[in-house]
Amino acid sequence: MSSAAAGRHLLSIAELGRDGIDELLGLSETFVEVNRREIPKLPALRGKTVATLFFEDSTRTRLSFETAAKRLSADTMTFNAEGSSVSKGESLRDTAQTIEAMGADAIVVRHRAAGAPHQVARWVDATVINAGDGRHEHPTQALLDLLTLRHRLGTRSFDGLAVTVVGDVRHSRVARSGVAALALLGARVTLVAPPTLLPESLDGWSCVTTSDLDDVLPETDVVYLLRLQRERQAAGLFPSVREYTTRYGLTVERAANMKPDTVVMHPGPMNRGIEIAAEVADGPASVITEQVTNGVAVRMAVLWWLLGSGTVP
Amino acid sequence: MSSAAAGRHLLSIAELGRDGIDELLGLSETFVEVNRREIPKLPALRGKTVATLFFEDSTRTRLSFETAAKRLSADTMTFNAEGSSVSKGESLRDTAQTIEAMGADAIVVRHRAAGAPHQVARWVDATVINAGDGRHEHPTQALLDLLTLRHRLGTRSFDGLAVTVVGDVRHSRVARSGVAALALLGARVTLVAPPTLLPESLDGWSCVTTSDLDDVLPETDVVYLLRLQRERQAAGLFPSVREYTTRYGLTVERAANMKPDTVVMHPGPMNRGIEIAAEVADGPASVITEQVTNGVAVRMAVLWWLLGSGTVP
Amino acid sequence: MSSAAAGRHLLSIAELGRDGIDELLGLSETFVEVNRREIPKLPALRGKTVATLFFEDSTRTRLSFETAAKRLSADTMTFNAEGSSVSKGESLRDTAQTIEAMGADAIVVRHRAAGAPHQVARWVDATVINAGDGRHEHPTQALLDLLTLRHRLGTRSFDGLAVTVVGDVRHSRVARSGVAALALLGARVTLVAPPTLLPESLDGWSCVTTSDLDDVLPETDVVYLLRLQRERQAAGLFPSVREYTTRYGLTVERAANMKPDTVVMHPGPMNRGIEIAAEVADGPASVITEQVTNGVAVRMAVLWWLLGSGTVP
Repeated sequence: MSSAAAGRHLLSIAELGRDGIDELLGLSETFVEVNRREIPKLPALRGKTVATLFFEDSTRTRLSFETAAKRLSADTMTFNAEGSSVSKGESLRDTAQTIEAMGADAIVVRHRAAGAPHQVARWVDATVINAGDGRHEHPTQALLDLLTLRHRLGTRSFDGLAVTVVGDVRHSRVARSGVAALALLGARVTLVAPPTLLPESLDGWSCVTTSDLDDVLPETDVVYLLRLQRERQAAGLFPSVREYTTRYGLTVERAANMKPDTVVMHPGPMNRGIEIAAEVADGPASVITEQVTNGVAVRMAVLWWLLGSGTVP
Repeated sequence: MSSAAAGRHLLSIAELGRDGIDELLGLSETFVEVNRREIPKLPALRGKTVATLFFEDSTRTRLSFETAAKRLSADTMTFNAEGSSVSKGESLRDTAQTIEAMGADAIVVRHRAAGAPHQVARWVDATVINAGDGRHEHPTQALLDLLTLRHRLGTRSFDGLAVTVVGDVRHSRVARSGVAALALLGARVTLVAPPTLLPESLDGWSCVTTSDLDDVLPETDVVYLLRLQRERQAAGLFPSVREYTTRYGLTVERAANMKPDTVVMHPGPMNRGIEIAAEVADGPASVITEQVTNGVAVRMAVLWWLLGSGTVP
Repeated sequence: MSSAAAGRHLLSIAELGRDGIDELLGLSETFVEVNRREIPKLPALRGKTVATLFFEDSTRTRLSFETAAKRLSADTMTFNAEGSSVSKGESLRDTAQTIEAMGADAIVVRHRAAGAPHQVARWVDATVINAGDGRHEHPTQALLDLLTLRHRLGTRSFDGLAVTVVGDVRHSRVARSGVAALALLGARVTLVAPPTLLPESLDGWSCVTTSDLDDVLPETDVVYLLRLQRERQAAGLFPSVREYTTRYGLTVERAANMKPDTVVMHPGPMNRGIEIAAEVADGPASVITEQVTNGVAVRMAVLWWLLGSGTVP
């Protein structure tokens, strides 16, 4: 599979398939170990240049990719759309081709339009990595979530695992990639949200839905909370933050109804006190910090898989 | 010449002269070859610090310089005027001296005022590189254009080469540096633009002018299109974008009247469909992507020439 | 003391005490020497990651820390609050914990709220360095000022040294940290400002105050000018810039009344012509540029002291 990856892209979970996910998670374990070393650096990608091309602000995702690149000894090139040729009207195509022409071996793309990274992949010979496109996909987030679950659950098999995803699924690429990956690995996923925040259609989603969190929470192995975007309220998609929290927030009271070993996840940044109580976020069930840490290892794995050569370091 | 360059600056094409241009283009060829290696890095400037001091946004020029610096193993220091001490009213002199005091060996300056890099060069002991000053000069752009032409034409001699520069020459440092360099190397340059976008005086320009592109295009060896700044329209310097394109755009129809081997150039970012048709920009006559690639090699040459020591790597 | 520093923070001058200051200044001398080498780099912190987390713009302080980190071969991670998860409402705690989870070994914090770095230090296991918190402290500035004075005065003993700090002491963390450090080393500090710009209380300050600069200047060994923030005038804290300069500016005329060996300091960025005349800033009494240069050495010392191991490089 590693040879098949040469010169390729990471655009979606579906294209990886179960084998691709397994291979990347296996590689990620190697880099988790590397990151625990006294000097967590490898010369694996020396001479390679990894560019980040972000059309939406996301300092944490960008820094996670850049940290991953640096730990593999790649150089980084940060192209922020704001204040660049893009603000002068340059097309996405010209921007991407310019970055490639300057020597980028990989381009990590974040864009508000679904499909933008796929377009970039058609325009350049460089490797393209989707770091979030519109409501569509965010595959490295799904991979880091899976890696974190593997560690906490102590198993590679997610067959029959009951995962509950709570919140604004409709607008969430995190949910879309995550549910696709969990379903591929055999988990049973339930989406919980007000109907206005559920997907308009479940075509392509392997899951069931409900609007009653309290009904499913006691049987849940993993509860995954999505960030509530305040602007959805202005759009009339939910009545008030307080009511949202009352019905969908993982409050301390509600968390008390979880099984003792239920795992709590959130992609960050959190709205503490809204979709998750601070006590729960910081409590023993939470793996939210581990998600961030594993993100660097997963992105090292993805970069090495797409750009590296030779044996696994 | 390399010893003469020690401790010096690159501020204009004129100061280089024909010998300096030839030497830098020769050096650039070396770095073109380096950039094609599996690991396109050299330790040549290890321990040196290259600072970029940009008072105008230009992500692509800044990244080109920074990529060049990193490939020579120099450290980089990015000083964006916005949000810095400059916005607190610090003078250009104090900013430059502060950057030098922090350890910068070279300062790459982009400024809206013509002559700003020359002033900086009087204030600091560090090497100063002009990355564009007002309407004045942009010498590394001229060098990368020459390098690209050398490659496409397969010759180092530009004697008698018919070069047509189209567009807003009046406000263009790209044109000013480019025409100076081409003239030094023996090319015959024609400027084509509405009279309002031609230089107010041709003093110091070695070229002729016309406002009829169709008249000169069939005899042209190289057509160099300048970016149309939309704000010139608001200033009344041309009537409409549509009319500009009709008279001065390199449309598909117009390009059909070029000789088969005419070379098409543009400094980027392009306004596709305005000064250049997308089909022409992406067609076989275009070397626009090569210009970007060669920019990194030229800037490696300039940095090594000004900061390096010992033999050519 | 170096073992005591392991896993610790640099939050204030008081916690260092006289021994800590002496140790850090001694270490800084080593790095001053390193910075004069042909290749001013050491592998001392290879594999470490130094993050800058700045909630207030300060390009010069951030670049000074990042240059220090790079010279010790650490990787850097630049987290600008603007355009980040912070602007989406993320708490300081979550931001800091996220940066740590991504692998930061040290977090350099600049924040408008006094005490913010202390809070961060309670929330993370990473080393925290205070790069300026509100009106409170800016300890590395104090250390670089002391190092600069040591060099100019040619002595490590500041016993009885007459230091005059002029300007907006009330809002100045530079003054607060500097006066604390100078007092610890035995200097006699006088604050000079209009009463509205002096501290509301001198509790915790070891100094005397006056509003008559001309009275103390002839007996001063070191005059330290603070930057005048124009917004203080809008707040009614001084009547006009012109009057401020007349009474508190180090004009050429006033500087003529200094002793021949009086040292002039300023933390930058300067308002030339307001708190300091350009001729004085650039004159032989000024060590303002040396302050900037020493800032890098001091920050290398601090980073090495907090993160390094083994013998002094």
